[in-house]
Amino acid sequence: MFDAAGPVVGIDPGVSRCGYGAVARGPGGALVTRAFGVIRTEPADELPARLAVLERELDDLVRDVGPCALAVERVLFQVNTRTAMSVGQASGLALAVAGRAGVPVFHYSPNEVKLAVTGDGTADKAQVQTMVARLLSLDRAPRPADAADALGLAVCHLGSAGLHRALAADGSAADGLTRAVGAALAKEAGR
Amino acid sequence: MFDAAGPVVGIDPGVSRCGYGAVARGPGGALVTRAFGVIRTEPADELPARLAVLERELDDLVRDVGPCALAVERVLFQVNTRTAMSVGQASGLALAVAGRAGVPVFHYSPNEVKLAVTGDGTADKAQVQTMVARLLSLDRAPRPADAADALGLAVCHLGSAGLHRALAADGSAADGLTRAVGAALAKEAGR
Repeated sequence: MFDAAGPVVGIDPGVSRCGYGAVARGPGGALVTRAFGVIRTEPADELPARLAVLERELDDLVRDVGPCALAVERVLFQVNTRTAMSVGQASGLALAVAGRAGVPVFHYSPNEVKLAVTGDGTADKAQVQTMVARLLSLDRAPRPADAADALGLAVCHLGSAGLHRALAADGSAADGLTRAVGAALAKEAGR
Repeated sequence: MFDAAGPVVGIDPGVSRCGYGAVARGPGGALVTRAFGVIRTEPADELPARLAVLERELDDLVRDVGPCALAVERVLFQVNTRTAMSVGQASGLALAVAGRAGVPVFHYSPNEVKLAVTGDGTADKAQVQTMVARLLSLDRAPRPADAADALGLAVCHLGSAGLHRALAADGSAADGLTRAVGAALAKEAGR
């Protein structure tokens, strides 16, 4: 199931809506979207049944995609306890699925994703989504937002160096983004 | 795997140490300890591997014991976000295991357990452990504390009515506990 050269699966964990996005490197280093979407569980069902469904879907996703890594959103410690518990339940399942499959897991904060994707750690959601669409050559921002966030996590993991290569291969919009990525790297180095 | 007349498994969820305790009703309604202990995961291992181990052990436990219910400690919202995330990860696995097996899950706060076990919602840990040992006819307080807490959860779920029956069957210490349980029920009714 585990493929060291496989795509990266981003996961925006949640019990009601769990966003996922699989991104690989195509020939020449361009970023290629493999899959994205949202796993939903039925709010009217009991929580144990919902978590069992979520885990099975995550299991299927990892089996189908064969990722080399999972990039999971890091929970900020400003969120309230109830949110942290719920995100913990969803992320715990994603991590256990990855653990069983031998897929390494990496965590990124929303600001790290913004920085990696737009070059600006304070970018708003719309800017991130527009940039994710551009980097992945999608003709519009991926919907719903949880799927876009998950794709952003995968792109973030594939890294700034990868963005450079992807844009060099693509040719379009390279100048603006190269500057943005340069600025992002400079910021990151300065932290 | 699911047995409607089976024992109750209490779970004190945690990633490093996850306490469990299985309690059933014997002939005459007495409480009988089926199993208790702590699932430990290796702190030096990566979190995904640890969660995968924890889930497998919980799966084995539910398969071996065939419970009619899981009684899981409810997280108090006073705990910090980091603790809530970690407990959420462990409890999410327990809930998913229960969901897959069709075992219903019930949550009890530490105070509800104290009240059910000792008749006093403000009892200290030692008092709870002593009372758990007495109710389960163990010759000493179960160790480690996480296992005792898990047994307390199972006893709590089996309920005050069950405690009365168990003590009536046993004969010993019935008076004091009957009074305590009466007081507990009165307190609970007054909430």
